[in-house]
Amino acid sequence: MSRLHVFALEGIGEIAAGDDLASVIVQAARATDVRYSPLQDGDIVAVTSKIVSKAEGRAVAAEGRDDAIAAETVRVVASREHAGGVTRIVENRQGLVMAAAGVDASNTAEGTVLLLPEDPDASARALCAALRARTRLRLGVVITDTAGRAWREGQTDIAIGAAGVVVMDDLRGATDASGRRLDVTVAAVADEIAAAADLVKGKANGIPVAVVRGLERFVEDIGQSDARAIQRPAATDMFRLGTAEAHAEGYDEGFDAGFAEGKLAGFADGQAAGFAEGIDAGRAEGRERGDAPAVDPGTVS
Amino acid sequence: MSRLHVFALEGIGEIAAGDDLASVIVQAARATDVRYSPLQDGDIVAVTSKIVSKAEGRAVAAEGRDDAIAAETVRVVASREHAGGVTRIVENRQGLVMAAAGVDASNTAEGTVLLLPEDPDASARALCAALRARTRLRLGVVITDTAGRAWREGQTDIAIGAAGVVVMDDLRGATDASGRRLDVTVAAVADEIAAAADLVKGKANGIPVAVVRGLERFVEDIGQSDARAIQRPAATDMFRLGTAEAHAEGYDEGFDAGFAEGKLAGFADGQAAGFAEGIDAGRAEGRERGDAPAVDPGTVS
Repeated sequence: MSRLHVFALEGIGEIAAGDDLASVIVQAARATDVRYSPLQDGDIVAVTSKIVSKAEGRAVAAEGRDDAIAAETVRVVASREHAGGVTRIVENRQGLVMAAAGVDASNTAEGTVLLLPEDPDASARALCAALRARTRLRLGVVITDTAGRAWREGQTDIAIGAAGVVVMDDLRGATDASGRRLDVTVAAVADEIAAAADLVKGKANGIPVAVVRGLERFVEDIGQSDARAIQRPAATDMFRLGTAEAHAEGYDEGFDAGFAEGKLAGFADGQAAGFAEGIDAGRAEGRERGDAPAVDPGTVS
Repeated sequence: MSRLHVFALEGIGEIAAGDDLASVIVQAARATDVRYSPLQDGDIVAVTSKIVSKAEGRAVAAEGRDDAIAAETVRVVASREHAGGVTRIVENRQGLVMAAAGVDASNTAEGTVLLLPEDPDASARALCAALRARTRLRLGVVITDTAGRAWREGQTDIAIGAAGVVVMDDLRGATDASGRRLDVTVAAVADEIAAAADLVKGKANGIPVAVVRGLERFVEDIGQSDARAIQRPAATDMFRLGTAEAHAEGYDEGFDAGFAEGKLAGFADGQAAGFAEGIDAGRAEGRERGDAPAVDPGTVS
């Protein structure tokens, strides 16, 4: 029977730069309700990126937040001004499209903001390897963050780093119950794991780690896939720019092209009009100035 | 302790138009492993939209698929041609932005395709009320479908209908562990529930219903919220159009504006050039034709 348990690891306190997360997680798992502990083969450990960032010393002074966001931004995807300021959706150095480049100001030490881990897949690989070494269990790791979406309100948790876990379950070519091939389905299971874990971690209760049990079939060797594979490259993204930004880009290009074509059309019209005016004026002037060589006085009646 | 169980209801066979889904689900729950059954107060039943559509008789002939997609489409958001045909992301009659308007060709009866339920929230309310009446339990219902996303590869399941379930957990104003207000977090919990359920339902194994246990805090009276609330209105969506479509719209507008402005600029240039040509021609002509009225013969030397 297909079944999933997702449970929070409790008792994880404040994480500081340099902390050994694998050790913290193993201790918390041991202290968690015995019915679900200790960790088992095939468990996937979902870790909020915030504590990975803290352990990696990714805090910067809060007054540098705007600079930090700018420094983390590779490409502005969309921005919109509103009463509370400006919402900027950007692609960050990790390749993720998120508001504020993923720079986080909640649940951080007073006076600081947190950058995302420099390389969340590398963080996941290191944590997964340490957890496997310490427990001698075949575990998976997903590092999660909270992100908004196009078309839908609210945020969900997604996988920004992964190790030892199949991130995409490619069902193309599989057959349905009628024996027909499935259309175009590639399930982003790492994102679904992150979402399931968020339901027990929550945002406000400071629980940064959950264990997802029952997905042994998605646990694999470390290094076989990573969460970066879920990122759609801008070149193939039908939504690489916000509507307003793409519109503005198109408008500018269209304006230049239109101006050039309009100028040609206008020139011809203007030339005709100018010629007509010019020739009238020229004739008048010519008649006034018309002198002997042009008008033989002898012929004047 | 925060804990979630997600388990599939097995033994649900093929659903036909007119079937009583509440009855089918209750029977399947009774037949499922006793450790997790029967249903309990606070359980959320996640139902694949496909079987809701089948029960509601939403199958249409497969040769009418393109017409069906066109009929379900309210607005084309983005389209792109590729080797396999055209991918069209549209807003459908349910207000959902999805490929092919949500018209489904897999796991359907031979020669048919399935439209989404006419009003998935209404379907969820009816099913939830029937399940509650039959079981005397305070259950929630989420109707799920599979959708692609901007910026990220692959698909995840989302909630397209909901009843008796909080769909958005609004944490704005809540405080974090340091007592600071959480930024802008509104967790789309109904989508996260749909994602968690997909991990046990899967796509290829024909399991259309999963039960999510442990989220009693999100179960509420029927009619208090619905999944339509998760849909971001196009007017406030920074991604209401694909990049190429918005660019093309902008280009056309820019071209028209540029053409008009270019035409004015060109006219002025053309006019000057034409005048210069005209006056030369006119002078020459005028001198040739210069006659008595213009040149007083008496003054001719």
